[in-house]
Amino acid sequence: MASEINLDFDRPERIGLSEAVFCLGKTPTQVAEAIAIAQARNLSMLLTRLDPPAFAALPAAAQAALDYDPPSRTAVVGAPRRAEGEPLVAVVTAGTSDLPVGREALRTLAFYGVAAREIVDVGVAGLWRILKHEQELRRYPVVIVVAGMEGALFSVVAGLVGGLVVAVPTSTGYGAARRGETALHAALASCAPGLVTVNIDNGYGAACAAIRALGRGVRETAAASGRAAPAARG
Amino acid sequence: MASEINLDFDRPERIGLSEAVFCLGKTPTQVAEAIAIAQARNLSMLLTRLDPPAFAALPAAAQAALDYDPPSRTAVVGAPRRAEGEPLVAVVTAGTSDLPVGREALRTLAFYGVAAREIVDVGVAGLWRILKHEQELRRYPVVIVVAGMEGALFSVVAGLVGGLVVAVPTSTGYGAARRGETALHAALASCAPGLVTVNIDNGYGAACAAIRALGRGVRETAAASGRAAPAARG
Amino acid sequence: MASEINLDFDRPERIGLSEAVFCLGKTPTQVAEAIAIAQARNLSMLLTRLDPPAFAALPAAAQAALDYDPPSRTAVVGAPRRAEGEPLVAVVTAGTSDLPVGREALRTLAFYGVAAREIVDVGVAGLWRILKHEQELRRYPVVIVVAGMEGALFSVVAGLVGGLVVAVPTSTGYGAARRGETALHAALASCAPGLVTVNIDNGYGAACAAIRALGRGVRETAAASGRAAPAARG
Amino acid sequence: MASEINLDFDRPERIGLSEAVFCLGKTPTQVAEAIAIAQARNLSMLLTRLDPPAFAALPAAAQAALDYDPPSRTAVVGAPRRAEGEPLVAVVTAGTSDLPVGREALRTLAFYGVAAREIVDVGVAGLWRILKHEQELRRYPVVIVVAGMEGALFSVVAGLVGGLVVAVPTSTGYGAARRGETALHAALASCAPGLVTVNIDNGYGAACAAIRALGRGVRETAAASGRAAPAARG
Amino acid sequence: MASEINLDFDRPERIGLSEAVFCLGKTPTQVAEAIAIAQARNLSMLLTRLDPPAFAALPAAAQAALDYDPPSRTAVVGAPRRAEGEPLVAVVTAGTSDLPVGREALRTLAFYGVAAREIVDVGVAGLWRILKHEQELRRYPVVIVVAGMEGALFSVVAGLVGGLVVAVPTSTGYGAARRGETALHAALASCAPGLVTVNIDNGYGAACAAIRALGRGVRETAAASGRAAPAARG
Amino acid sequence: MASEINLDFDRPERIGLSEAVFCLGKTPTQVAEAIAIAQARNLSMLLTRLDPPAFAALPAAAQAALDYDPPSRTAVVGAPRRAEGEPLVAVVTAGTSDLPVGREALRTLAFYGVAAREIVDVGVAGLWRILKHEQELRRYPVVIVVAGMEGALFSVVAGLVGGLVVAVPTSTGYGAARRGETALHAALASCAPGLVTVNIDNGYGAACAAIRALGRGVRETAAASGRAAPAARG
Amino acid sequence: MASEINLDFDRPERIGLSEAVFCLGKTPTQVAEAIAIAQARNLSMLLTRLDPPAFAALPAAAQAALDYDPPSRTAVVGAPRRAEGEPLVAVVTAGTSDLPVGREALRTLAFYGVAAREIVDVGVAGLWRILKHEQELRRYPVVIVVAGMEGALFSVVAGLVGGLVVAVPTSTGYGAARRGETALHAALASCAPGLVTVNIDNGYGAACAAIRALGRGVRETAAASGRAAPAARG
Amino acid sequence: MASEINLDFDRPERIGLSEAVFCLGKTPTQVAEAIAIAQARNLSMLLTRLDPPAFAALPAAAQAALDYDPPSRTAVVGAPRRAEGEPLVAVVTAGTSDLPVGREALRTLAFYGVAAREIVDVGVAGLWRILKHEQELRRYPVVIVVAGMEGALFSVVAGLVGGLVVAVPTSTGYGAARRGETALHAALASCAPGLVTVNIDNGYGAACAAIRALGRGVRETAAASGRAAPAARG
Repeated sequence: MASEINLDFDRPERIGLSEAVFCLGKTPTQVAEAIAIAQARNLSMLLTRLDPPAFAALPAAAQAALDYDPPSRTAVVGAPRRAEGEPLVAVVTAGTSDLPVGREALRTLAFYGVAAREIVDVGVAGLWRILKHEQELRRYPVVIVVAGMEGALFSVVAGLVGGLVVAVPTSTGYGAARRGETALHAALASCAPGLVTVNIDNGYGAACAAIRALGRGVRETAAASGRAAPAARG
Repeated sequence: MASEINLDFDRPERIGLSEAVFCLGKTPTQVAEAIAIAQARNLSMLLTRLDPPAFAALPAAAQAALDYDPPSRTAVVGAPRRAEGEPLVAVVTAGTSDLPVGREALRTLAFYGVAAREIVDVGVAGLWRILKHEQELRRYPVVIVVAGMEGALFSVVAGLVGGLVVAVPTSTGYGAARRGETALHAALASCAPGLVTVNIDNGYGAACAAIRALGRGVRETAAASGRAAPAARG
Repeated sequence: MASEINLDFDRPERIGLSEAVFCLGKTPTQVAEAIAIAQARNLSMLLTRLDPPAFAALPAAAQAALDYDPPSRTAVVGAPRRAEGEPLVAVVTAGTSDLPVGREALRTLAFYGVAAREIVDVGVAGLWRILKHEQELRRYPVVIVVAGMEGALFSVVAGLVGGLVVAVPTSTGYGAARRGETALHAALASCAPGLVTVNIDNGYGAACAAIRALGRGVRETAAASGRAAPAARG
Repeated sequence: MASEINLDFDRPERIGLSEAVFCLGKTPTQVAEAIAIAQARNLSMLLTRLDPPAFAALPAAAQAALDYDPPSRTAVVGAPRRAEGEPLVAVVTAGTSDLPVGREALRTLAFYGVAAREIVDVGVAGLWRILKHEQELRRYPVVIVVAGMEGALFSVVAGLVGGLVVAVPTSTGYGAARRGETALHAALASCAPGLVTVNIDNGYGAACAAIRALGRGVRETAAASGRAAPAARG
Repeated sequence: MASEINLDFDRPERIGLSEAVFCLGKTPTQVAEAIAIAQARNLSMLLTRLDPPAFAALPAAAQAALDYDPPSRTAVVGAPRRAEGEPLVAVVTAGTSDLPVGREALRTLAFYGVAAREIVDVGVAGLWRILKHEQELRRYPVVIVVAGMEGALFSVVAGLVGGLVVAVPTSTGYGAARRGETALHAALASCAPGLVTVNIDNGYGAACAAIRALGRGVRETAAASGRAAPAARG
Repeated sequence: MASEINLDFDRPERIGLSEAVFCLGKTPTQVAEAIAIAQARNLSMLLTRLDPPAFAALPAAAQAALDYDPPSRTAVVGAPRRAEGEPLVAVVTAGTSDLPVGREALRTLAFYGVAAREIVDVGVAGLWRILKHEQELRRYPVVIVVAGMEGALFSVVAGLVGGLVVAVPTSTGYGAARRGETALHAALASCAPGLVTVNIDNGYGAACAAIRALGRGVRETAAASGRAAPAARG
Repeated sequence: MASEINLDFDRPERIGLSEAVFCLGKTPTQVAEAIAIAQARNLSMLLTRLDPPAFAALPAAAQAALDYDPPSRTAVVGAPRRAEGEPLVAVVTAGTSDLPVGREALRTLAFYGVAAREIVDVGVAGLWRILKHEQELRRYPVVIVVAGMEGALFSVVAGLVGGLVVAVPTSTGYGAARRGETALHAALASCAPGLVTVNIDNGYGAACAAIRALGRGVRETAAASGRAAPAARG
Repeated sequence: MASEINLDFDRPERIGLSEAVFCLGKTPTQVAEAIAIAQARNLSMLLTRLDPPAFAALPAAAQAALDYDPPSRTAVVGAPRRAEGEPLVAVVTAGTSDLPVGREALRTLAFYGVAAREIVDVGVAGLWRILKHEQELRRYPVVIVVAGMEGALFSVVAGLVGGLVVAVPTSTGYGAARRGETALHAALASCAPGLVTVNIDNGYGAACAAIRALGRGVRETAAASGRAAPAARG
């Protein structure tokens, strides 16, 4: 049977983001095939949702090819770009249980060479924790806020800063937290203007949105189409 | 056909709260009959969810018997108790659209003679609005917080004060606000400890909870059962 | 990497409740770090949702520091306050499957030094079981009712007593019980006035609400702000 | 165009219940055609969900053919059977807003000649109201319980009596009552054994279930199939 | 700590059904205690939802006391009543996966001494399978129909017979079957009049409803209250 | 401002179906503009969901251009194709309230020149009504089944015939019918193999699916791409 | 106890599709019995949802009788029909995780002797992947599209081709993908006319629908009832 | 009674966006008061969700103060900033029914002086409509995509361009479109990386997000905090 993988190699040229391999629901053989393709083409590649048991099930050669980070369940093939300059993105997490999702965002930003700042455990039950970062947070063009339960932190941050605020609702909590739906709905129904959101637990998506907002994708594709790139920010 | 009303006259003795007439879904004849019974027994009675058209549909005698307040959709038959002393309850509303629900709570507290303080339009999109009341709010044994949309104000207030915080989610908002369900779930999944909630738009219920928490119901029924009343607070 | 824990040590002063460590979703390393911080500062600390496997995964030193109660999945670091005087709170459970949630409430009350009374297996299918406690229940300023399935016990109790009734819906049941949502909705849509509710299976939250209603949090923070404490009740 | 009505005239012979005309969503012409067919065949016929405006929109001849009862939104063509003997069914309603649904059940029972007893406004917020009927209720082979909001009355009654208890959840209430779903789920997840339920607001269906349980349908169809009829009960 | 079991021993006298022990969520110790109480009082007792692993976890003495049936997950302590005479109840299952639920109903009926008839694998995809039982099914005062997926069998049977039809929706199926909710909603929204339903997978409840409908509960409690029992049927 | 209409004129060539104008949510000006474009290009055009008030709000010239059918809420501009030969599609409706949706399907088929057969009011509560059409139904390559409430008719028909069965769930019913969702889920979770479904109340879509299944779209586009057309069926 | 299997052997004659054994929820004994019946009658039989562990739990003789394909979880007893001629159906999958569902469709088509074409990993994030198959896809009378997440591929394909497009939503994705419900709703609410859908992950059902649409069932049953078969297509 | 309006005048300085008045649920008096405050302070102010009847209910003076646009339901007090330079944002709508929401976004962008480009009626049922704008769309730093029904356009656009793509799901459609929830879930579960979304029908929020992403809020607040502003883009 022919290959079951049909990678979208033109994506970076088209939108400035390469195709990441979402490992949930893929067999070890399929994941290993994707890794081999990347190595054969000498491409860097990001893998997400690679649980430790899934990593352990890979062939040794595939494991050896990966820079694997268990908490964030991400792995990288090849050398990512080097992050330079001042951080342009802040990744803020409400509680300790939200850390893995925040780390997925940070690893994705690092893969694309975007410097970022992590601020942890600043949920609104102790409001002083986020307020002490208020002035700093106003400096970032993009702030990614990672929170579960009732997701009140999204609205609080979006009311404090003027950059793009990307909410990442998480499945932290139980009962009425509804596996992340309550935080998701809170982000969508926020009283703060211009807050945007991605899917539950989607730290990878929030990082991609940040990269889009920073104009990286526009710049790169612009180069391909002959248009002048927008000025870099920050 | 016999009477369709079977009022629970022993309720005040039992739980310290008299039966209120919930007017939604009742015919004008049924509402008027309840009013007549209260007048015949010389009782004070609270009516809730009496929309202006429903009020207008009542017989003139029934209308004349009522102290009617259109914004809160409440009406009172007879003289309510007099509120005395310092306010024991604060009623905090997030936005202008939440005012009618907050007013229902205030009218209910007034009916039972409980002094209360109203604080309006302090949603978290401008966090300074609630923070400037922080010290004052810590003084109240009970704080009722009325908010729709994402309901972030519930967690913010419950993280600031030590009294009982009763959330009243409202149906303010649209789309992902889901007619109040998002604010309701936010109250239930809050990261702040000990927050409690009542049904969507139920300002009346929040006020009754405040009265229970203040020990009024315990005191009154205690009198009937020979137990010493707890000391009043505040 | 810096600490992933950012405890809210000012919370007792602010709201009269210290931060509890919710162990679900935390790694053994994170839980052990929180225990070590409490020990280093000589603080008492409550841990909730610590399943037996999670307890067993802790380092021996962390285990030794804990007073662990498997049924309620709670653990305590250090010495809790001593409960004194007559019970102020009753914890009523509908069925045997609701016991662990009731025990979480009882352990939390004990941690804060609040004397409480447990009444078990009094579901409404045999109504005489709750009715025989009717007079006793009227004496408590706060009654916590723990029930799953259809949650009819919430309304029955709230119709009998005048104290604050806090419903704790549980995930007991199957099918239309919807993992606790039916009991939760029953508490919210109750025909009894002034009933309040917390999240599904949240015995900890109900106990915190009881402490708020008893004025403990108001008293303690009042001390910090120079206001006279309200008289203790009961 | 040919007739749009295709009535199931064999249904009484088959199951002991004739086809009722559910008027919601039918045009006045269609309702009138059904009435005319019944008159032409000299049959009795029950119509349900005939709102006053829908009744008013019928041709005068159709209106004149009907015994119309606005509160229950039912109408009868021709002479219903005469009810005889002691009541075999009790219809119990929790609140005033549940009356129209209870009346739909009572009108349906009357149409089939089944004597019934109505007990109104006995919701559990004042438990004494239902308890004073306890001994009487034990006498009925079938008890229909009509309740909205949290539907606690279903479980309470099913725990008190040994006859068939048919719950009719109603759309009374708001917010978490979810237009009758909470009462419906409460009936299904009841802790009382053997409680059955019909659709929200379906008083007609509950009455039909009572008639099935009383063996009327078995008896009548048995006659057609040559089997001895079961003895009537009560 | 005192006993965690508070059995409702008066239930048979009150409603003709004894308390069954629902084993899901109970510890082996709690189940064994209930068995010991029944043995000490020389009572028969039914246990439901006792999975094979839960049975295996019981102490040997408790296991020895049980007549255990793995497919239906039911067990009986002591001698059940003897079933006599013609079957009064038919238990009809749509597919092989619905059998365990049907068996729970049959075991419950047997426990109470009610003779019953089982008809299996007659789903509507091959309509002839149910139609060949049409005449027989009309003879039973009660027909229990057990079906998952789309639950079409409920309406088909209720359109064919005049006895009480009790639907038991099952969690058979996937996706849009929504773990039994679709079959449940189909039973409730049926176009056939007088169909009633119990909770998803609740074979025990359907059997109890049959016993109520057969007048067993009325007769027994009537004996206790001095009223003449209704004639037995069938 | 430029035109707000951007019609897909190549659609017939591409997929054999022309763009229909869905009138719900469009202003009279927008609908009239679409009609004018069709007239100017001398095209036939189908309009759906044109309620009588929306029709009445159109300019007189637009009204005059339409062949309008109020029950189905459809209108046609220009001359539809002539239907020829034997009917290839049967449209079966469960109840009178489902007729408008069935008529929308019939009008769409007529617009495309497909002969069809209508069979009405054959819901499963009287199973003989559909069974008497069993042999005839087996002759049609496509059977469209229109049903609301519990949607049992879908599975019954799909178990009887071998042609393509397209379910159209309708919003007929109340409560647990959930505005058509129960019938929709019943179609999806059907025990009969190969049943397909379209959206709730979407008679238009079912007719388009029939046209696709009959190979009309393949034939026409095939002509454009040089491939031999499949033989017409029937 | 009698057999628990009641196979519908007349189904091929009636609708052109034989009964497949859905193995989920069946015991190994029940599955083995079905296999033995097929062997005894010398019939071919398809088994679906036979997970590797379920296959491993079968008796050796049953295993030996099967042509088992783990990825699609299907097995075949006996010799399937031979596929001949040009492919009439295309099976298109959006991502690698959707492959098992697509394979279930392909195996079902092969069982019935229908030649098919597989096109993999053509999700819309890289639109060129599906567009390069546009001309080819227009040639198939039926196109089965298998997609999870947001299911955008359904509408895109249905806008490109004129054959019958059958959507198979899959449970691929997380969070807002809601275990396949979002893709399912996307198929139902599609802006492309005439798209039909089957249940989530139901590759088997989609293949059966294709066979119905190709007229196989009509032809075969027509043969039995004396009607001329429609011409085969393609 | 004191003012019921408590405007957040510092918001522009804080986040670069002024407070807009959401008119749904506000009384004419409240809206007029907000307008008067803006006029008294000589501020520009945006009003959203001002339906024509709500506009008509305003006092004449308030009406005169407004630049009102009925399709978008927006109004402006005072002079908005002048838009200059090349468009930085594209607003793409899938169908005619989505236009009002797109216009709300355009009016909001205009209020803040951001030049924008509108592209209408390019839904995926005719894919060529969006593909012909592919090169142009790659030039915009932000693309707002407005779509209802299945929302496939979001993923298609996000797969084509590298700028920030903000989805605005709309309530266009019926049945399984679920008043916009399906399009919302489609945006969240998209297979295209980095797509973000706002609430259903929230054109205003999408425009605010665009302004945040363009760095306007960062620049302005940066000025207040002494930080160098990022370079403007485009």
